[in-house]
Amino acid sequence: MSILERRLFGPGPSNPYPEATAALGLPLLGHLDPAFIALMDETCDMLRTVWGTDNARTLPISATGSAGMEAAFVNTVHPGDVVVVAVNGLFGQRMTDVAARCGAEVVAVEHEWGQPVDVERVLGAHPSPAIIAAVHAETSTGVRSDIAALGAGKGDALLLVDAVTSIGGIELRADDWGVDIGYAGTQKCLGVAPGLAPFTINDRAFARRVEKPHSWYLDLGLLGGYVGEAEGRGGGRTYHHTAPVAMVASLHAGLARILDEGLEAVWARHEAAGRLLQDGLEKMGLELFAAEGHRLPELTTVKVPEGVDSAAVRRYLLETHDIEIGAGAGAYASSVWRIGLMGRNARPDAVLLVLAALQDALDHA
Amino acid sequence: MSILERRLFGPGPSNPYPEATAALGLPLLGHLDPAFIALMDETCDMLRTVWGTDNARTLPISATGSAGMEAAFVNTVHPGDVVVVAVNGLFGQRMTDVAARCGAEVVAVEHEWGQPVDVERVLGAHPSPAIIAAVHAETSTGVRSDIAALGAGKGDALLLVDAVTSIGGIELRADDWGVDIGYAGTQKCLGVAPGLAPFTINDRAFARRVEKPHSWYLDLGLLGGYVGEAEGRGGGRTYHHTAPVAMVASLHAGLARILDEGLEAVWARHEAAGRLLQDGLEKMGLELFAAEGHRLPELTTVKVPEGVDSAAVRRYLLETHDIEIGAGAGAYASSVWRIGLMGRNARPDAVLLVLAALQDALDHA
Repeated sequence: MSILERRLFGPGPSNPYPEATAALGLPLLGHLDPAFIALMDETCDMLRTVWGTDNARTLPISATGSAGMEAAFVNTVHPGDVVVVAVNGLFGQRMTDVAARCGAEVVAVEHEWGQPVDVERVLGAHPSPAIIAAVHAETSTGVRSDIAALGAGKGDALLLVDAVTSIGGIELRADDWGVDIGYAGTQKCLGVAPGLAPFTINDRAFARRVEKPHSWYLDLGLLGGYVGEAEGRGGGRTYHHTAPVAMVASLHAGLARILDEGLEAVWARHEAAGRLLQDGLEKMGLELFAAEGHRLPELTTVKVPEGVDSAAVRRYLLETHDIEIGAGAGAYASSVWRIGLMGRNARPDAVLLVLAALQDALDHA
Repeated sequence: MSILERRLFGPGPSNPYPEATAALGLPLLGHLDPAFIALMDETCDMLRTVWGTDNARTLPISATGSAGMEAAFVNTVHPGDVVVVAVNGLFGQRMTDVAARCGAEVVAVEHEWGQPVDVERVLGAHPSPAIIAAVHAETSTGVRSDIAALGAGKGDALLLVDAVTSIGGIELRADDWGVDIGYAGTQKCLGVAPGLAPFTINDRAFARRVEKPHSWYLDLGLLGGYVGEAEGRGGGRTYHHTAPVAMVASLHAGLARILDEGLEAVWARHEAAGRLLQDGLEKMGLELFAAEGHRLPELTTVKVPEGVDSAAVRRYLLETHDIEIGAGAGAYASSVWRIGLMGRNARPDAVLLVLAALQDALDHA
């Protein structure tokens, strides 16, 4: 069977940075090998940089981004806690389900899809929530919300943020913005295959955590020893579970690539690529879906033109050009496309290719 | 920095099969790409073979083996359910913690470490348990237990089995033995990096499952759509979470390697390597730890000789020969070594190497 070479211009995974792929093929280390422990320490340090945090408790959770969401809620929601969730897309919706399973009294603040979070409405939804939760970059709609404004107004509540599609792609400053708990994924702008959930929690949130959460696997009280929190850098490790060694090595390589280029330069590269794509799509006569002024550069949503079969276009792109773009999410499955330019794909040549291919598909599909 | 090439003769991870490592370096597929869906279908089929099951609900859970344990309990334990756990090592102990967090009334049947599960005592521990749980191959002690006998006597209870260290290494026949729920890991005898938990559950157990478990990420009701259970092979997929695509591709390659060699031939290879190692250790004058007649071939426990510094020997092996062996677990941390011959390392040349290196370490450390 011949090897497929897809260009991944959907909502994620993106094509990993070559350094991240190469690291997957290195000889495997044991999870308690001193060399792996050093690699894990460096990975956590680099994660602190991309999160914009000094939090000691910053680590790659050993599962995909959705497990990061679960870790965030299962460790911080006590039964009956009021959790205000800003819902402006699929991942806000998912938060309400996950929080409810943890015993939260959920106050969902619904928004029209394609719009950013209405900060006033969210902050006014309840007088004294335990947690306010929001998605920084909604993967389902391509919209960026103002996390700093939520942090400024959160009061005594903990601010819990989904940064799956923002981390490594757009400005993210967890500490400056007042983020208490954050989770992300590796397979979008970090340019690493899916499989880990970069996670961070500050002392304030950790002090209020659930002592014995329902989840053993995601229990942050136990995971502290796993990344050597008690012993410090290079110190001993408490065996909790076997680290996904190859994936951590790959994340290490991806992060090193990003920090070598410079985090702000990487953000600028995503910004430039996204603007080029969005201008190009409008020049083709297509209409963007996300509200103007709140569009993510790394993930663009565009309306499927009247009379065009969304799935046929996507199939044509995949079969003719080995190019993947995404369908819309939820009610917009067949009326919106999602085009991602993440990690190594946030480059002008990728923009030229995807625009030309989409034009070809519209002409032929 | 030069690349380390460790020989992983500890309790896991083992050195992956080269096919499994090569697959990690292939171009990444999207998680909804028809080519990935076909790969996932084939992976689930091959997992059915190594499990010895026809269960439709057989899949690689997107996290490490310990999350497999959590998935097993969180989906099947209703609050107040009596769960009898056979505890003859660390992983049986862990089961009691995980089950209790799910609301179980746990009946722990304690055994001396190094001994197999006492089937009579476990079956007699409670008149009507909802679940009986046991570890097939205790990674902490190197002991095999008789799962078939537990299955024969389980009555109406569900039999929940940890096959992390047995799958792909020794005989495992989930259906014939009456296993209702099973979980495993990829990083031992399957010869793949850590990161996935091969999982299986039969219709009987699925029918009794928790409708809305505390865990969203591990909810088998939602994961059915993820692997196309409703639609059948090659059918549509419900988006649940982004599959860890590279790891699934690697598992696919590792399983294909095993089935190409032949599952029974692979078991025989592990058996032969383990016997050769155990004979060699005894010829060196060392004493084995696990009870005779119940020793795992893939994981050998051996007592540290009087007066020998366990950690110094392990450090010497790692630094001088790039060889990893494991410390003991729990109370046996410094009095027992664990030597794994798993997957590609279940070969006579590996046995010769580890025996020679251990002799060298005992002479010099």
